[in-house]
Order: sequence, then structure tokens, then C-alpha cells
Amino acid sequence: MNETQYMELAITLAQSVKGQTRPNPPVGSVIVKNGSIVGMGAHLKAGEGHAEVQAIKMAGHLAEGSTVYVTLEPCSHHGKTPPCADLLITSKVSKVIIATVDPNPLVAGKGIEKLKNAGIEVEVGVLQEEANELYDMFFHYISTKTPYVTLKTALTLDGKTATSTGSSKWITGTEAREDVHRYRHMHDAILVGVNTVIEDDPSLTTRLSGGGIHPIRIVLDHHLRTPLDSKLLNDHEAETWIVTTSAHTDAQKEPFLLKGAKLVELKNERIGIHDLLIKLGELSITSLLVEGGSEVNGSFLKENAYNQVVTYIAPKLVGGRTAPGFIGGEGILQMGEAHSLAFKSIEKLGHDLKIVAVPTEEKR
Amino acid sequence: MNETQYMELAITLAQSVKGQTRPNPPVGSVIVKNGSIVGMGAHLKAGEGHAEVQAIKMAGHLAEGSTVYVTLEPCSHHGKTPPCADLLITSKVSKVIIATVDPNPLVAGKGIEKLKNAGIEVEVGVLQEEANELYDMFFHYISTKTPYVTLKTALTLDGKTATSTGSSKWITGTEAREDVHRYRHMHDAILVGVNTVIEDDPSLTTRLSGGGIHPIRIVLDHHLRTPLDSKLLNDHEAETWIVTTSAHTDAQKEPFLLKGAKLVELKNERIGIHDLLIKLGELSITSLLVEGGSEVNGSFLKENAYNQVVTYIAPKLVGGRTAPGFIGGEGILQMGEAHSLAFKSIEKLGHDLKIVAVPTEEKR
Repeated sequence: MNETQYMELAITLAQSVKGQTRPNPPVGSVIVKNGSIVGMGAHLKAGEGHAEVQAIKMAGHLAEGSTVYVTLEPCSHHGKTPPCADLLITSKVSKVIIATVDPNPLVAGKGIEKLKNAGIEVEVGVLQEEANELYDMFFHYISTKTPYVTLKTALTLDGKTATSTGSSKWITGTEAREDVHRYRHMHDAILVGVNTVIEDDPSLTTRLSGGGIHPIRIVLDHHLRTPLDSKLLNDHEAETWIVTTSAHTDAQKEPFLLKGAKLVELKNERIGIHDLLIKLGELSITSLLVEGGSEVNGSFLKENAYNQVVTYIAPKLVGGRTAPGFIGGEGILQMGEAHSLAFKSIEKLGHDLKIVAVPTEEKR
Repeated sequence: MNETQYMELAITLAQSVKGQTRPNPPVGSVIVKNGSIVGMGAHLKAGEGHAEVQAIKMAGHLAEGSTVYVTLEPCSHHGKTPPCADLLITSKVSKVIIATVDPNPLVAGKGIEKLKNAGIEVEVGVLQEEANELYDMFFHYISTKTPYVTLKTALTLDGKTATSTGSSKWITGTEAREDVHRYRHMHDAILVGVNTVIEDDPSLTTRLSGGGIHPIRIVLDHHLRTPLDSKLLNDHEAETWIVTTSAHTDAQKEPFLLKGAKLVELKNERIGIHDLLIKLGELSITSLLVEGGSEVNGSFLKENAYNQVVTYIAPKLVGGRTAPGFIGGEGILQMGEAHSLAFKSIEKLGHDLKIVAVPTEEKR
């Protein structure tokens, strides 16, 4: 195996734990000595050992003189665990190959410096692009202090999220619906508008055949209309946060608190998405999956507050001039001013099509 | 080259003339003798020589003892030209390889029979699937006597055909827009609703860098509201047909006739799509490209009157709860009763995505 292949393995290890390490990034590591893998590992959970620590542990005394592959720059600071750079030095590894630098100001090159100062050879940039994609959410959060936002929807080929009567079960097939649960697993929180709770009473949990982590469930609820008998307030499957204004009395808030919900009160009269994201960032939400409805999506569009758009398109037609679409609100008025994106990936999932698009600065 | 490769060439020749042979199907032929191509040709235009005739002409006396590849069963009847089967017999070819049988009741195996009776070896089915796709429009017309209907639209990723203010220029990039003109070239007629004529004053012609054939332009116009100063009635680029009811007086019709338009009067009080297609079939329209708007598309959906849906999706978001979508009308009421399609092809065209879908009987 060559350098790229070892790093590919490290990235695969990191991808496998994406979603379970919050608020930490997913990291993978592979240790090679004399052409054989002598250690491998991933960071499994915040507060537990980092990827390099796990891999060094597996390598034991064989770590001495080895080459360590790691997807993200080893940390140099004391957090919940001691600095990984120190462990690599005391383990007397010969070389460390890093996919990408950690932009976290607490690290940001200091880990590399520490290793070099100890006489360890350091190489940076092997599969950097793949690693940066792995860290899209983490890097966004670190640089903006607000969560990475994914807008997700399922549409018929004619762009509808439901029929004119509101019927929406099911647009897509099982493969696409399972894929949605992978996104729930990978995001810290999931957000819906209160109308979705009133109309659909969703559970918003992660339901994967092999298990998964539930996102924190966030409801945008200006007037505290979330039904007290809704699943979100009664199933105890995951935390439920209700985002509202500061206009409510203690008596109004009490029934929700008694149900175990957290009330996130924004200071303005209306719920602004920009303010919301700052607040969620302060509350350590690093990634947010927005599952509509169309008016909530319209607010995210209006404030240009999204980093990724995931669309599942089913080969179906329903028509209907009043049937709801993906994004409501006032919308953009001129086609020339449409938000410009780029298709990042296009794939068939069962009978359906999955399109991932990301905003671009490019104008045609 | 093997049999498949010779037939591939014949299909390529046929594809190259799809759109210019109406109402005849596009046919290609290749003649091979002693491992060399001695003739090739395609049917170029109704009333002119069929593909085999062109190829035999090129082969000259070398046709004797040769193998003839042809994409569609040679005709056996006297039409505008003599039967091709007869020419193949008098040219003393040894073998005829046919991609697919002509379901036209005037042919339908009779061509093959004639050849066999003359002692010519006949093989059927080489690249049959590819040939059947080439003849999707022709076979539909032959079997139903109504045109093959393609619904075409350009959408933003959030399923809009325009912004809430009606702004729609341009959704897609140049590659997708050029592709639309290839569809215009390949269809006998193009259809829009009168509102599209009033709002956009389109020319609906085929504008390709290498030239192309204009479709007959058909306007659905219940109340004869097509503006007399519209391009369709004044540019003399192609025929314009106005489909309306029989409720109008000669005085009301006269200004349109004076402009050179053809009035197609349906007997019912409203314009039914089913009746329309029967009428257009009678008028030798074998294929129809429907370019909306959404209410016209809604009528085609309602009457289940389409054979193919071509969607261009641009990586753009515009939102807007009142922005128009692909298909209006009342629509289907329950998602479980949505029209079911299958994605036939998915490809990137410049920045955009092109999806071709066809109706399927399959239910999930």
C-alpha cells in the first residue's frame, strides 16, 4: 500500500464515526512500520481517546520508528485529554503524515510545530481535499461559530413536497428514506417549524437498521403552539428544544419545561435565522439539519443561511397549482438574482435521485 | 467490424436524420461485401429514396451477393416510392440483417416474408432495443394514431419555472437551452397555451448552430385570444395552428386565417387533450413537444397524455410560495396515486442536470 492508500483507510475510519464524536471532529489514524499496519483507530466519542491515542495503544512498542497517518492535525493543547502531539513524541514515532491542518485556533499549526521541534518528520496534504470534505461541518463551525446548515427535502419530479391536499407519504422509496436517517445521525440537531409538528407529529429521531444517534430536535415556535401531547414532548427519545421569542410569561412556558423541553428564547420579536444560528452555535450545535416545511425553508433562503442542499427526487408526478413546493416565503424576485449553487453529487438511490448541491459564488 | 458494429453504424445514420423524415421514420442502412462497406445511406426526407435505396445506389453492381444492414424492416408496399424489398431482390443481395420489425400494418413482417420467398437470408433483432428506442415516437404513432407526447420543462432545484414575479430568463445555461432546440427539431409540432403566447410572445422555432427543422407551432386557445401581432402569426418561420372550439363565427376566425394560421376546431365546449391528440394524429402529427405553462401541463397530466418527461434542473434556488411550478391544474390528490415514472437517463449538461423519465406501470 502507498501513502494515499493508508490515508484512504484513515479517512474511512474517520467517516465511520462522523456523527458520534460531537462536538469534536471525526478523526482516523493508521500506523505503519516496515510496510505493515501496526495500529489503527478512530476518535469514538468526545471525552475519550483521540484517534492517534487509540492507534498508538494498538501499536504498543512497535510505535517507535513508525509512520503515523492521521486525517487531522494532532492537537497540541490540553483539552479533555492530553495533547496527542506529546504522545506521538514520547512514543518516538519517526514520521507523521497529516491530511489537513486543524483550523481550530487552539491547534492551527501548533501541533505540527511541536512535532517538528521534537525531530519528527511531518508531511501535510495527503488526500487533503477528501479530508476537507470530511470536515466541512467542523471547519464551518470553527470559523463561524455557527452550525453548518443542511436543507433537506424530498420532491416529486414536478417539484412538489406534497399533493394539494397535503398528502406526502411517501414521496421517495426506502433507500432514500434510510439515507435521510444517516443525515440525522450526522447532524447535531434537526429543525422543523411548529406547523410541521402540528400537522405531522413527527418523531425526528434517527432510525437506522444498525442504530444511530438522535439529533437534538428543535422546533421554531414563535407563539408556543407546540402541542403538549406531541411525540417530541413525550417520547423521551432525544432532547427537544423550542425556539421562541422572549415575549412569553413563566406560566406560558411552564408546561413545556415540565415536559422536559428546553426553551431557547431569542430577543427579537420575530425569530431571525441569523440570530438563531448564533444562539445555536453558543449552545455547541455544530451542524443543523433543516427538514422544512416550505415557509421555514423560505426563511433560511431569505437570510442565505445554508451550506448544503440535499434533494431527493422521486420519479413521480402529482401536479397541482396549490401543492406545496420545497421553498416558500416571498422568494427571489428576479431569476437573474437566483441563489447560485453547484451540483456536488448526483446519484440514484433505489428508484429515486439524490442531488447534493452547495452554494457557489459563481454567476453565469 | 462485427454485425453489431455495422448495425451501430446504421443506427447512427438513422439517428442523424431523426426529425427530418416526418411523417416517415428515420432509417439507416449499411451494405457490406467481403468485409468492406460498399454502400451506406439513410432516408433523408419523405418522398425521397429510402435508406436501402440510397445504400444500394452507392454499392452499384457490388450489391450482388452482399449483406445489407437496415435499422427497420424494408417496406413491401408501394407508397410514394417502390417497395424496398423488391429492390433488394432485384439487386441480388445475399442476406438482410434487420434491427427491428416495422409494426406498420402495411409492412409488419410482409417485407421479411417477401425477402425470404426470394431466397434471401434474413436475420432480425441485431441491436433491437436500441432500434426500438430510435422508433419510440414512430411506433407509438403507428399503434395509437396519436402523436408521441414529450412534456418538457426547465426548473430550479426547488422546482420553480419562474420567480413569483414571473421572471424566468434564464433558468438553465446554454447547453441545456441548445438541447431543447434539438427536441424541437425532432418533434413534428410544439404546443403551448395561449397565455404563454400573450405573456412571452415566443417564436418556438428551432435555433441550432447547424440549422434545424421548425416544428409546427400549436397554440391551445379556447377563446381566440392569440394576439394578432404575436411572432407566431407574423414571422412566417413555420406553420402556426390555433386549436380552439367550434364556438367561433367566421368573422371571429377571419383575422387569424388572414395571418396564414390554420384553425383546428374541436367539437366540444372545452379543449380536451384526448380529443386534441386524436385530431392531431389525423392531421399527421406523429410527435408533439409540450412546452407548458403549468396549467397546460396540468391538463396533459390529468388525461394521462404523455409518453416522456424531459426536465432540465438548474443548480439554483428562488423560492416563493406563489412562484409557478412545472405542473398546475388540480393535480393528483393522494401521494399514493401519483403518476409513477422511471428515470430513463440522467446527465449533466453544462452546469445543469437533464432528466428523462418515462411512465411506468410499476407501483411501489
